[in-house]
Amino acid sequence: MNNINKNLIKVARNILPADTIFKNAKIIDVITATIYEGDVAIYDGYIAGIGKYQNARNIVDLNGKYLAPAFINSHCHVESSMASPSSYCIEEIKWGVTTLITDPHEIANVAGIKGIEYMLDSVKNMPINYYVQVPSCVPATVFENSGSVLDVSAMEKLLKMNGVLGMGEMMNVPAVLNCNNEIISKMELFKGRPIDGHSPMLSGFDLQGYVAAGIKTDHEATTWLEAKEKLRAGMSILIREGSACKDLDAILKGILDEKIDVTNVAFCTDDKHLSDIRKEGTIRHCVVKAIKLGMNPIKAIQMATINAARIYGLDNLGSITVGKQADLVVIDDFNNVNIVDVYFKGNKFEEIILKEQKIENELKNSVKIKKVLRENLSVNKPESGIYKVIKMIPYKITTDCEQMTDNDIKNGIKKGDICKIAVVERHNKTGNVGTGFLKGYGLKNGAVATTVAHDSHNMIVVGTNDDDMLAAIDELERVNGGYTLVKDRKIVETLPLPIAGLMSNMKTDELIKMIDKITKKAYDMGISKNIDPFITLSFMALPVIPKIRITDIGLFDVENLNFIK
Amino acid sequence: MNNINKNLIKVARNILPADTIFKNAKIIDVITATIYEGDVAIYDGYIAGIGKYQNARNIVDLNGKYLAPAFINSHCHVESSMASPSSYCIEEIKWGVTTLITDPHEIANVAGIKGIEYMLDSVKNMPINYYVQVPSCVPATVFENSGSVLDVSAMEKLLKMNGVLGMGEMMNVPAVLNCNNEIISKMELFKGRPIDGHSPMLSGFDLQGYVAAGIKTDHEATTWLEAKEKLRAGMSILIREGSACKDLDAILKGILDEKIDVTNVAFCTDDKHLSDIRKEGTIRHCVVKAIKLGMNPIKAIQMATINAARIYGLDNLGSITVGKQADLVVIDDFNNVNIVDVYFKGNKFEEIILKEQKIENELKNSVKIKKVLRENLSVNKPESGIYKVIKMIPYKITTDCEQMTDNDIKNGIKKGDICKIAVVERHNKTGNVGTGFLKGYGLKNGAVATTVAHDSHNMIVVGTNDDDMLAAIDELERVNGGYTLVKDRKIVETLPLPIAGLMSNMKTDELIKMIDKITKKAYDMGISKNIDPFITLSFMALPVIPKIRITDIGLFDVENLNFIK
Repeated sequence: MNNINKNLIKVARNILPADTIFKNAKIIDVITATIYEGDVAIYDGYIAGIGKYQNARNIVDLNGKYLAPAFINSHCHVESSMASPSSYCIEEIKWGVTTLITDPHEIANVAGIKGIEYMLDSVKNMPINYYVQVPSCVPATVFENSGSVLDVSAMEKLLKMNGVLGMGEMMNVPAVLNCNNEIISKMELFKGRPIDGHSPMLSGFDLQGYVAAGIKTDHEATTWLEAKEKLRAGMSILIREGSACKDLDAILKGILDEKIDVTNVAFCTDDKHLSDIRKEGTIRHCVVKAIKLGMNPIKAIQMATINAARIYGLDNLGSITVGKQADLVVIDDFNNVNIVDVYFKGNKFEEIILKEQKIENELKNSVKIKKVLRENLSVNKPESGIYKVIKMIPYKITTDCEQMTDNDIKNGIKKGDICKIAVVERHNKTGNVGTGFLKGYGLKNGAVATTVAHDSHNMIVVGTNDDDMLAAIDELERVNGGYTLVKDRKIVETLPLPIAGLMSNMKTDELIKMIDKITKKAYDMGISKNIDPFITLSFMALPVIPKIRITDIGLFDVENLNFIK
Repeated sequence: MNNINKNLIKVARNILPADTIFKNAKIIDVITATIYEGDVAIYDGYIAGIGKYQNARNIVDLNGKYLAPAFINSHCHVESSMASPSSYCIEEIKWGVTTLITDPHEIANVAGIKGIEYMLDSVKNMPINYYVQVPSCVPATVFENSGSVLDVSAMEKLLKMNGVLGMGEMMNVPAVLNCNNEIISKMELFKGRPIDGHSPMLSGFDLQGYVAAGIKTDHEATTWLEAKEKLRAGMSILIREGSACKDLDAILKGILDEKIDVTNVAFCTDDKHLSDIRKEGTIRHCVVKAIKLGMNPIKAIQMATINAARIYGLDNLGSITVGKQADLVVIDDFNNVNIVDVYFKGNKFEEIILKEQKIENELKNSVKIKKVLRENLSVNKPESGIYKVIKMIPYKITTDCEQMTDNDIKNGIKKGDICKIAVVERHNKTGNVGTGFLKGYGLKNGAVATTVAHDSHNMIVVGTNDDDMLAAIDELERVNGGYTLVKDRKIVETLPLPIAGLMSNMKTDELIKMIDKITKKAYDMGISKNIDPFITLSFMALPVIPKIRITDIGLFDVENLNFIK
């Protein structure tokens, strides 16, 4: 609504008929935190009024069911689902989310502005409010080569784009704290808009400094103590409950124990797998868990709706009050938050059968590598004679560093405990290949490769032999990115992810099956059960998480911020 | 802070010394709704951090006293205090208010843009955040002549002025509901900004329509039922506790009984007299009353601070968190909200001795009348032979209409029960004088006149004889507006209000004494004890309150919206 909608006033006054009236609703009023019975009149996608309305083209008798504002997922990375943006939206909508605050950090690393435009374009007709927080750190570090750089001027362009809300999670904490000029310039661009944080375990003076720079939100707190310190510093807390990171229990228990005001607290997923979303939804699942923990159900709904709207300045969303967008969910069983129907701008969501999605060439042909030769995969012997090996840790994405001799390596490979790992630059045909050894992955014979490799999304290949690794690289080049498994130079399974090498254009049902299938086959190849064959692997290239990583430039010591020679 | 303050980051990180550190504070944290002990570092007027800071130019040891965000008066008319804006601010600051959201409706009716500029200019060096909501209805009605008209283009100019926040209370409810083009254009100018409402007892469909137009706040609810309906429609409720209107008890009792969320609820005074402010403060008094009613003290402080900041989008105010403006109050006795010290932008408020204030000629010479002759004061005999007389009602500003014959009038005057009343146009020398009779005022012998006359602020004169009325008119012309009492053509007492005929440039102490003195003398002249001699009188010219009023154009029937002939 840019202008005042005179007809909305007339419908409110019961002079013009409404488009839809929801009759006999138990309205979940997140403003007063009460539930009351009433009829809600909708016009032109907005709530016109609550009262004894009678005249409408469409009358929906809720027969005493609950009517709540639809949910807001306050921070998510759509690419991580590997579904296309529109497919992802459908999964969210089904579970009552009609507003996504997304950070397209992954596609931006591959395809920059074009990638973000693609995300926004491909959902523009979807029944969802799809907001973009402009990725703040592309590339994430200077220790790797990504497909794109979002500098100040690129961010300025993005700022003018429809659907762009604020700035995505600021991962470069040291740059903020040290008042790095470029980072400060980027942040000043977004002054007055929501600026998301990313500061796991930041505390004390440095936390105060980070907030003093203007960072407004946090979704990385994993303990109540951390969340409380951040709240008190002035950050809004987006409690994360995704597939890997589950912070809701810890934080909400603290909130309940200490009777904390939750106005500045909302829910998010960060990253949640399609199959998990299918099972339980995203924000709806957070509400259910919160209620089970003993939270007042209306407060739980507030965190899922109005709180997120307030935090992000989305004045037209988040409550069943006059003039708000009519994004609503009908719930029959309140304690289980059983969603019967979802409405976006007053229209009921019906199953959408997506047409085959066109992918622009630029996004489809994102795997651009210089032919990798056998010799590119060799690992140089360190000057010291001692190899530093990346050691995976069960259930974690942090790694340890293990020191090994030539002999240790050979024995490890023989025992199937050590593989070779390579990161192949895949954006600009630089020919860069970083190589090293990986312990604890469990692969017995063959190779695994993926173009999903945080955050620059080069190609990671792990193998027990060079032939299979080369075959895996060729396969992912052929299919324009994805996951692949190779054994004896034969393709065991491939999941193509042709959208920027990150996302699939398959139907979601098929995609979920394919993910399950290739994951199972990966485990069949010996990969350790306490490691996700592809997701854990994808973090081995992220040179910001301790202790040791590998990029297209080489092995990297995260704690000392230097390459290992 | 337009740009990121790098030094603030450094102070936050404990690398640079702070300006001030508040040590050993019991911090009232309105975000988590808890109290905790800590030290607060201030730099450049902002809160740099909370933590174990040591280095500062100035260390204030609070020894366990409470530190709260300073208070926000979310809706007030400064002119109604009759103090100059800067004098008024001092009274507020002393009691912990460092943010005023003002509606300069009165001076705008006299002096338009110039008047609003004067208000903003005269406080620009005061330690207070002084915001203006642009008056939406100047003149208030078409049934009177005011000194100024704020049309769409004037409002557009005001919108660009520093300190202007949103739109002042929209009193023209019928125009909103009927989608009057000019009113809609005015409101569209303020789209996305706070737009205040004024809709006493508006309910049902019409309330929904009013909110659908974009009205965001209400301060006129006098019962909990009214407030609840408005909250549920989506309005923020500014609970009013002024001198005449005291709505806090009724509304807060409802909130407490029904355990209502108060995030969208704040406090305001609307109109509060200087002597009342002196005694108990404004918002501080609301907090005290709320606590006495049984409200959680932190929730009461939230309503006085962060809630108002959120409602008005004042992101830099309202909490003790990093990056907020360091507007703080030190409290020793929490239950009695005993304010020890007040800080604005980190600086302690010290008594300010105001210099004599210059008043621009335009504001000083605001009483421009065409010489009033004896014959201008005559009351025409109605065609019907029956006079309609304004009957004052004890303790109320509404009036009744009494029908009288010539004889009734004569007897009433003889008995001292009826006076003549005249409204003299005083802005443009039109020579307009509306005349009629007034019952129930009680004046026995003489005349009373005032240039404070809602909302157009023409001159109201009431008298038992024309000689004294003429003398009173001359006196107020001579002193450039104010209050005056005349008996036997001699001035009994005059309170000059030379700033637009509304406000005094006296010292506040003197002003309070003068108001008391002239009020006492007015009662001595027989005015009924259940009527405020000047304030109740000032509402006799407001042609929007039932049942019968008088303007410079003549006697006005409010219910039928026509002049009485």
